[in-house]
This record gives sequence, C-alpha cells and structure tokens, in this order.
Amino acid sequence: MASYRDIFKWGDKKETSLDDGIKKVIKEKFNWSDNELIFNHNDGNEPIDIPRKCKLSDTIINEFISICGIENVSTKDADRALHSYGKHYLELLKLRLNKIENPPDAVIYPRNEFEIEKIISICNENKIAVVPFGGGSSVTCALQMPLGGVSLDLSKHLNKVIKINEENHSVTVEAGIFGPELEKALNAYSTGYTCGHFPQSFEFSTVGGWVAARGAGTLSTGYGKIEEILLSLEVVCPNGKIITEDYPADAQALDLNHIFLGSEGVFGVITKVCLKIRKFRPQNTAHASFIFKSFESAVSAMRTTMQAGYGKPHLYRISDPEETDVAFKLKGFDGSFSDKFLKLIGYQPDKRVLMFSAIEGDKKYTRFVKSRLKKACRKHKGFYIGSSPTKKWLEQRYSSAYSRDPLMDKAIITDTIETSVNWDNLVNLWKSVHTYLKSRPLTVSMMHISHVYENGANLYITFLSPCEKNNEIEDYIQLHKGLVDTILANKGSLSHHHGIGRILAPWMAQKYGPLELDLLQSIKNKLDPNNIMNPQNMLGLK
Amino acid sequence: MASYRDIFKWGDKKETSLDDGIKKVIKEKFNWSDNELIFNHNDGNEPIDIPRKCKLSDTIINEFISICGIENVSTKDADRALHSYGKHYLELLKLRLNKIENPPDAVIYPRNEFEIEKIISICNENKIAVVPFGGGSSVTCALQMPLGGVSLDLSKHLNKVIKINEENHSVTVEAGIFGPELEKALNAYSTGYTCGHFPQSFEFSTVGGWVAARGAGTLSTGYGKIEEILLSLEVVCPNGKIITEDYPADAQALDLNHIFLGSEGVFGVITKVCLKIRKFRPQNTAHASFIFKSFESAVSAMRTTMQAGYGKPHLYRISDPEETDVAFKLKGFDGSFSDKFLKLIGYQPDKRVLMFSAIEGDKKYTRFVKSRLKKACRKHKGFYIGSSPTKKWLEQRYSSAYSRDPLMDKAIITDTIETSVNWDNLVNLWKSVHTYLKSRPLTVSMMHISHVYENGANLYITFLSPCEKNNEIEDYIQLHKGLVDTILANKGSLSHHHGIGRILAPWMAQKYGPLELDLLQSIKNKLDPNNIMNPQNMLGLK
Repeated sequence: MASYRDIFKWGDKKETSLDDGIKKVIKEKFNWSDNELIFNHNDGNEPIDIPRKCKLSDTIINEFISICGIENVSTKDADRALHSYGKHYLELLKLRLNKIENPPDAVIYPRNEFEIEKIISICNENKIAVVPFGGGSSVTCALQMPLGGVSLDLSKHLNKVIKINEENHSVTVEAGIFGPELEKALNAYSTGYTCGHFPQSFEFSTVGGWVAARGAGTLSTGYGKIEEILLSLEVVCPNGKIITEDYPADAQALDLNHIFLGSEGVFGVITKVCLKIRKFRPQNTAHASFIFKSFESAVSAMRTTMQAGYGKPHLYRISDPEETDVAFKLKGFDGSFSDKFLKLIGYQPDKRVLMFSAIEGDKKYTRFVKSRLKKACRKHKGFYIGSSPTKKWLEQRYSSAYSRDPLMDKAIITDTIETSVNWDNLVNLWKSVHTYLKSRPLTVSMMHISHVYENGANLYITFLSPCEKNNEIEDYIQLHKGLVDTILANKGSLSHHHGIGRILAPWMAQKYGPLELDLLQSIKNKLDPNNIMNPQNMLGLK
Repeated sequence: MASYRDIFKWGDKKETSLDDGIKKVIKEKFNWSDNELIFNHNDGNEPIDIPRKCKLSDTIINEFISICGIENVSTKDADRALHSYGKHYLELLKLRLNKIENPPDAVIYPRNEFEIEKIISICNENKIAVVPFGGGSSVTCALQMPLGGVSLDLSKHLNKVIKINEENHSVTVEAGIFGPELEKALNAYSTGYTCGHFPQSFEFSTVGGWVAARGAGTLSTGYGKIEEILLSLEVVCPNGKIITEDYPADAQALDLNHIFLGSEGVFGVITKVCLKIRKFRPQNTAHASFIFKSFESAVSAMRTTMQAGYGKPHLYRISDPEETDVAFKLKGFDGSFSDKFLKLIGYQPDKRVLMFSAIEGDKKYTRFVKSRLKKACRKHKGFYIGSSPTKKWLEQRYSSAYSRDPLMDKAIITDTIETSVNWDNLVNLWKSVHTYLKSRPLTVSMMHISHVYENGANLYITFLSPCEKNNEIEDYIQLHKGLVDTILANKGSLSHHHGIGRILAPWMAQKYGPLELDLLQSIKNKLDPNNIMNPQNMLGLK
C-alpha cells in the first residue's frame, strides 16, 4: 500500500539520505550533535488515507471512462493523493502530517486533445473543477483542489514531439512532455538541437507547466525565460479553443501568448506548444568561474558585462557569501591549500563570493565572450579560478532538490523563494532579506543571482532552519510571511519564475493592483465563465 | 488659411518635389514621357473646410477649458483636420479630395497626467469618444473618429524625459515625446545612451505610439521591437489607471505590458513609458554591405547567421531584385564600371540583391560579428561591397517617406504594407506577392526584409502604380484587398509592425480568430465599459 512518503520523494532513483558533507554543515550551522541527525521526524511512512472520498457521481465517472478508457480514469486514493499537492514545503509538510486537504475527486489521463475538449465540456456543464497537471513540481500550491474535481494529468499520454522544424528552428510538442524527453529528442535530431530551457525542476516538469508558470532555466541569461522561448500555443478553455501562431514577431493587436504565460491553469488547458530551438553544440561551451572579494563587487562586474554590448553568458550566477561558504564546505575546499592561498590574497570567508558562467553557441563566439568576461571581472578584482568549478556545478545542477526530503526528515525547514529586482535595489534587497532571515535563530540564508538582464536580475533565496516541532505549519507560515513582506518592502517582485499560485495570492491585490487583478478576473470570466479552471484563490482570483 | 496640403506634407523642412533620380525611374517603369510629370493631380491646395462642425456642447467645452486652459482646447477646423487622419495612403488621398470624413469635435492638448484623468472621466460620463494622438503617423487609419469626440494630443506638453537611470539602463518618459527629442536627451546624458528604436516614422512619431502599435525600428534585429525595449508603462483607462513595474522579468501572473502593446488606443491613454537604453557608441558600429546572386541565396545567408549563435547585426536588410534595381538606378550605379564588373562576375540585374548590415556595441564585438557575417555570406556567394553603401543608406533612412506626397501629386499610388513570416514560407510569400502586384499593369513591386529573427523575418512591400483617375479610392481598395488576401493565403501575418487599426480590421476575425477577438472585446469592456476609447471597428472591435 502506498505511503505518503512515496509521494513526496523527489524522483525515485536517489537515496533520500543526507550525505556527509551536508551533515557536517548542518551540525556546524545549527550547533547540533550527531544525535539530532539520527531519528526522523514526521517521516510520512503511514499508508495513504484520504478522508474526503470521491464525490463525483457514477454517471459522470462513466462518461469520463467512455471518453478516455477505464485505465485512464482513477479514483484511487494513491492517485488522488499524488495529484493533491505540488512540491511546496507546506505541501510536503502536510503529507508528513497525513493531511490531504484538497484532493481531486478523480484523476484523468486524457489520450489526446479531443478527449481534453470533451472532458472540459462535461466539467463545464456540470461545474466540476479542473486542474491541468504536468510534472506536479509546482512550488506555489497551484495544484490543490479545494473544491475537488478533476486533476487532468497530461504527462501520461500527451508527451510527444509533434514536429521539429529545422528551417524555422522550432519544435512543436504536446504540453505534457517532460524536459528530458524533449531534450533527448532534440539532441538526437539531425545535427542536434536544444531547447535551452533547464529549470531546477527539469527532470520532473513539463513544457505546459513551464509556460503556465512563466518558468526560467539555468541558461536563461542567454536563451531567455520561457516567454522568450515560446512561439505559439493551443489552449482548450471552457469557452472554446485559443490558438496562436508561431510568427517571429507581429503587430496583430495583443500577443495572446502573454494571456497564457503566467496563467497557471486558471483559463484553460495548454495542450500544444511551439518553442524555439538552437543548435546543440556542448563541445563549444566556454566555462569561466571567478571568486570576488564581496557580493557588491561581483554584482558590479555582472551588471557591467550585461550592459557592455559584447554578448552575454547563457549561465550566469553569483552565490552570496553564505552560499559560497556552504558550497566550499560541501566540496571540502575549506582549509585546503587553495583556500589558504585565497585568504592570503584577500578573498576572505564570509565576504568572498563565487561566480559561475557558461557561454553556448558558435565556438569562436564562446571564446570571444569568455575573454571579454574575464577582462571585465578582473577590473572588479574577480579572481579567475578556471572552467572546472562551473562545469562541476552544471553536472550536479539538479541535485539540491534531492536533499529537501532528507532535510525535512530531520525537522529542518528547507525552502526557497525568489524575486526579481532592478540593479539599483538589488544589494539593498539582498541585505534586507539576509537581516530578516538572520533575525530567526539558527537560520541559514543562502542567496544567489541566477537569471540576469540588462536592467536587473533575480535573487534566489534558500533558507534552512530547525522547525518548531508540533507547530510546524504555523511556524513556517510566519517565517514565510515575513520574508515576502521583506521582499516587497525592498522593491522585489512577488516572483521571478516560480509563479504565484495560492501561496503568494494574498499579496496580489497589494502588488499587482486591484484594477489589474480585476482585469485578470474579467479575462477569466470570459474564457471560463463557470469558474471551473483551477478555482479558489489562484493568483488572487475567485 | 490652412489648406489640405498643409496637413499631408510629411514634415515641413523638405521640398515636396521629386528628385531627378526618381523621375527617371518613374518614366522608365511607367513608360511615361516628361508630360506626365508636369502637372499635379488633386494637389489639395484648397482651404480646409469641414462640413461636420463640432457637436460638443459649450458646457463640455468649457469644462475642458477649465481643466487644460483655453489655449489647449481647440475646435478650429485646421486643428480638427490635422487630427482627423494619420498618414495612410487613403487618408492622404481623401485630403486631396477634400474629404474629411471622421474628424474629432475638439482637439485637447493636456498638460499632465492629472488633466488626462479628468478629461477621460468627463468623456466617460458623457460618452464622448477619445483618441490618443501622438505624432499622427499612423498608417492604419487608427486616428479617425467616426463618432467624433476628443482627439487627445499628448505631443504638445507630455513630451519630457522624466528620468534616466544609468544603473538600470532605463529611461522614463512622458508618452508624447518624439523620437528625436528622446534620442537627443539620451545621447547627451553622461557618457551617452541610445534607445535603439528608429522606426521609419522616427522624426514624427511618439513613444506612446510606438508602444500602442507594437512598432519596430531599423535596428530591431539587434535591439528588438518595442516589445523587447519596453519595461513598464502607465495607462489611464476610463475604468481606472493601470501601472506596471519595470522589473527585468517576473512571474507575477500575466505581464500586463502585453495588454497595451498593440492596443492602439482602444483601452486607454498611455501616459508614461519606461524603456531600456544602451550605451551610445556610434564610433564602434561595424557596417557590412553585400551583393548576392539571388533573393533566395541572400535569405539563406541571413537565416544561417541568425541561427548560428555568434551574435547578430542590429541593422539587417535584404532588398529584393526590383528594390535593388531601383536603388541602383537612383544612385546612378546603373551602367557604371562597378555595375559592369558585377555583371561580369555573375551578379545579374533583375536577380541580384543588396544586403545591408550594421552591428552596434562594444568595438571588439562589432568587429567580431562582422567577420563572422562576412564568412557566412561568402559561403552563399555574397560579394562584400564594403561598409559605405550601408552607411549611406543609414544616412538617408528616413527620406523615402518624403517622396510619397510628390508621387501622389503625379497620381501615383504609393503605399507600403508589411507582414511577418516564418523562414519556411518566406520565399513563397515573396513570390506570390510579386506575382500579385505584377498582375496589375505598370506596377513597381519592391520588397525588403528589415527585421530578422531566428525563426523568420518580416517582409516589407512598397508598391507604386499610376492610379485610376477619378476612381482613386475604389481602385486602391481593390488593389489593397487583393494584396492582404495574397499575404494571408501565403501564411504571412496581418502586420509585423504597422498595427491593425481600421484598415486591416476586416481581416481580424478570420486571422486572429473569433474567440480571440471576443477576448479582446471583453478586456475592452472591462477597461472601457462605455466604449469611448477609439471606438468603431478598431482591431475589429466595436
């Protein structure tokens, strides 16, 4: 029988235990002995049991079965539980506490777009809520179904590459395809292509989800967020089907792609997506890693290069002093000969920061940009430490998500939040967030910049702190609320690429604006007049 | 007393007569004698007289005067006539025929945003139509006022630079500022900046118009269309004010900038705009000009460079054989030694095409991209003809608009239309448009590509043909209709950067889609419930 733990395990191929490096850091940061690392807290090994049973009538369920086949309609607890939550900290916590609060009544795996249209039509007639489900990697509580209804999982069948167009450098896919399958198909096609979109959730997220949540990948500084990669889409809405075209650009009234970028399932089901592709030439990639004496000087170097007009890196990251410190500790760099040397020449712990960069494309171009980058960094006292640290970081870029569950086993709050900010507010925002997080005892505050633009960047915040046992939920909510308030007070956006979902919805009226929110509601009312698409407080909507 | 001609004259500093080069081309193309070039036809020298007089009550007019001052409210025929039309061929033709069909009742020149809010509020209460007016350079019949009402001209007072932010590389302006004033302020500031947006209408268009019509400048291949340059805006709508923020990127639900990009005045008045800026370094610009043996080979070279991943030109253009031929004739290149040499080595008239490119930015970067470009063009048998032809083209880039009026004096239809298309349809679309235009006797069909993307490009079509005298309007409408139908049948978009306005509105339901149009209407209903903003068939709306 499936347990709650089966659901929150990030992937299924890696051991959910902490490696020695992380253990060492934890003990040092929290002043813990080995004892604290022995036992698991709320480990979710109990068998799944959902108190709220399926409330859809047999007639409705049979209609779904007649459309999609009996094997593609499930009312089993295990399936419903899996589709109840995304991967937000609170959701994982609730699973550990055996709380499944907002499950779907049924999970449906449609086999094609026509079946989706039929299901949406039935749900619309019967006012049954629908949430489109891809990889389930949402970290904004966007997949919960307070009213029950149907979780429409596209990843089982709608996961194919429809067409690769080499002349237009584009690929058309069904929206339920996962990142690795898309890249595999592209890499293998003809002389090789890539989509260039590698979010942290890459292994477990789908193209439809990337678009719906306005995601960003690790190479976004070069290739752009999904907004820049998306060419066109098809969306099945309760009120009909919206289809856009993959023109390179146009001036045909509003660009309707932007109605669905960031729509997070509230208007309809994204079924088909056309994306830009680029030549896949990993052998050409130039990597460059640097250490700077301070966060501020690294930010200056980064801003300078982004505004210089000589090209830009695809991967471009700065880790703040605490994240740099933890990275060094995890790699056993602490106390090494190189560490001593760096200290000697003025790169001090608690101040120094790491910068990683990688440039993709034409071989001569990547060499050219790297050389310009090195020169710019030198001016800001960035010390070049070779290509290897960046390469190693890229190799393990998806790994950190795998530590979440084992950290939570040890009753440690482990969460991330992210924002975007203009250059002129960035350092101040970073300091304010740091001060806020450090106001809580025993809190690790690690920040990095990982998506960079001419006029600003994102700030990605990872925080760890022992939770208040038996008051886990309230404890987290208070910490999170203060963090969001701190970000907004210091001119950060509500999100750079995770999206809003339900977790940030309470701030939307304040941040997005009441008329602006009302406008979204009127778009929703048009496309989804019965409010069946992901209803109840998504993005601050009804 | 002002004449109609005072209105349609493009600018006021240049002589409205044809130069000898153009005369020679005209005579050759249309098989005309000198006689045909002597007399003017419908030259619009009659004094302006608008049959439809101002129908607003004195009470309303006095309210406007109390808000903006008597000097900023006009009901004079000359002002109303100037604000009746943009610069579309049909509009200029109607002026020549002394037809002012859709004038505003009054022209108001608000002094600030608060005055705009007050005027919009009065108009909303009294259901008086409002059209925001900037430079009046619309070529889509977007400024006409079938219901009369108020033309709100922002260019007189709302034309200031509010702030240049060097750290964020951004500039905030009032929406009524003209291109040259913006560039002048930027060029002169600190070490010098540029906005990088140089539409053909640059001298006579405003920032608000660029955004509303989703414009593109000649350097858009490098800097992007206005969509890529816009950071944030403020819009006064009848239902309230929408304000967006200039984050570098975010994932806060929908990006509301895209509600107003392409809105063409139907939702509200854009009052304030924040744009990206870049370093102004004309001394670094690298220019490269080429001749290719055919349109197809030039297109292949262009596509290859756009997809190569080594940077890209900011200016990137190909003129098709007929446009190349005319350019050569105008420059007196025809029959020169160089011409003979080019023919000798296989670059034949009626087949050969010109390519211009310019790369801006860091000096080493511009040299680097130029060298890569030259190599790519060589592969497609592009013959490098130096930097000078591109430089010369850039110097006179705004001049062609000045020939429109003198050509119309000679009863010649002179119009442009533009579209965007994917690479895999581009050559076919070009051929079909050429065939269509050539099916009309004595028609010059000149096309170029001037805005280039990874997955396609625009196609800009200039056509000249003697009009059918005394049936000018119907003659043009038939020619135009067939042209738009040909473009759509061959997979071009309705517009790449001119916008839709009223002239292309009849195709919107077919091309944009009925549900899609209905969605726009519902956004309009929300922001402008009384339908006062640019009402009557804009974009296919009510």
